[in-house]
Amino acid sequence: MNNKKLYIVKIGGNVVDDAEKLQKFLADFASIKDKKILVHGGGKIATQLAEKLGIEVKMINGRRITDAKTLDVTVMVYAGLANKNIVAKLQALHCNAIGLSGADASIITAHKRANAEIDYGFVGDIDQVNTTILQNLINSGFTPVMAPITHNGKGQLLNTNADTIAAKLATSFANTYQVQLVYCFEKYGVLRNVEDRTSVIPRIDEKYRVELEAKGIIAKGMLPKINNAFEAINNGVNSVVIGHSKSVLDLINPDTNAGTTISK
Amino acid sequence: MNNKKLYIVKIGGNVVDDAEKLQKFLADFASIKDKKILVHGGGKIATQLAEKLGIEVKMINGRRITDAKTLDVTVMVYAGLANKNIVAKLQALHCNAIGLSGADASIITAHKRANAEIDYGFVGDIDQVNTTILQNLINSGFTPVMAPITHNGKGQLLNTNADTIAAKLATSFANTYQVQLVYCFEKYGVLRNVEDRTSVIPRIDEKYRVELEAKGIIAKGMLPKINNAFEAINNGVNSVVIGHSKSVLDLINPDTNAGTTISK
Repeated sequence: MNNKKLYIVKIGGNVVDDAEKLQKFLADFASIKDKKILVHGGGKIATQLAEKLGIEVKMINGRRITDAKTLDVTVMVYAGLANKNIVAKLQALHCNAIGLSGADASIITAHKRANAEIDYGFVGDIDQVNTTILQNLINSGFTPVMAPITHNGKGQLLNTNADTIAAKLATSFANTYQVQLVYCFEKYGVLRNVEDRTSVIPRIDEKYRVELEAKGIIAKGMLPKINNAFEAINNGVNSVVIGHSKSVLDLINPDTNAGTTISK
Repeated sequence: MNNKKLYIVKIGGNVVDDAEKLQKFLADFASIKDKKILVHGGGKIATQLAEKLGIEVKMINGRRITDAKTLDVTVMVYAGLANKNIVAKLQALHCNAIGLSGADASIITAHKRANAEIDYGFVGDIDQVNTTILQNLINSGFTPVMAPITHNGKGQLLNTNADTIAAKLATSFANTYQVQLVYCFEKYGVLRNVEDRTSVIPRIDEKYRVELEAKGIIAKGMLPKINNAFEAINNGVNSVVIGHSKSVLDLINPDTNAGTTISK
């Protein structure tokens, strides 16, 4: 086990969409001295662009269906607009960022999700993470900024959930670094009561998770995030914290108790 | 002088826009055994997307003015859609491509074009090329695929001419490699008579260039391309050839006399 720390921080669309919040987050993120990787979503800009272009948003069971046109929009917004603007802003903050998708250097290969009932379209489930290039970049002082786009190795780009990418990157590096996975979103953590932003649950272990899911406290959009968080902690990742994007420096500071910590 | 060859190949929008032409070109390009960098434009997709979004295309003296919204479209299409699709296709052809903009790893810094008469908007004139990261990637077996987007180091992305990027990359590597710069476009070379596609001028030196420009044979869109080509050949680049994207393997083969060769 290498005792070098690697922070893998994921930010959601609500930060990417808001110039002020993004700038504050990026300034905090840039100030992290250890090795780090940023994984970002794309947020509402992709949805808005699709609307402007008259592309119908298809949803099945709350999951977006990615047809060819929607994939193009996703690639444009995630791997283009969002990724390059984040990179330029980090560069201005003296963080040597390099923006990449999973297709680049074949960092993440995936396959089109197979499902007998629903055709999700160009949605990719991850097969493999190629850590070599990322590790070389990190060790050379670069900060990779990953857009949630993968490829199948046969020329097809795929849309892959950014939370899942962050978790897979984290587990892939678990033997090489002390990996700290941080999920940043618009809440201060997993809330006991969604109406009360101060009701943050400080720690969730497997046993408590079962209880919270049974009670419906962990539900909807939080379910896949929690799945990813436990996937990471159960596969060698050193720590997993979920919390607010404006408190990333608190979330990575074990003395603050900020956010929700996931434990085995 | 290192005796290793480095091919820098630029393709224009007409290839990027056409799936069949692009596939043929990429198969040829992927088959080049030596080290190589691909520089691409974005073509009509950006213009079409801007139209669909109701963004007016502003032109002054035949030059596109890049306002903030146009820049966003350019970044989306060039650094997102075009770049990542090219990378995925090259990966499928077993070429280990990595797509980058000039903002990534701060490969190309630029400044907003200063002009007393015309405000070109977010158009970047290149200040510096940082070859270190590209050289490391090339030497590790990767093929960089460069989108024509740069940044000013202060958080602002800029739109930069792809021909100019190719020329600047070529001159920046002239002390490290035997650089072969290849401009691929939709014609078989610089034509003596634009109506006659077989009227390719095999070789243009500085003296002949003056004559051709005086006669108006080199005019309009060809002028900046020729400027870039001579900039490269006059700054240590080993060879500069202009020709058809479907003949890239002929263009890099000195035995074929394909295309127009630029010489001092």
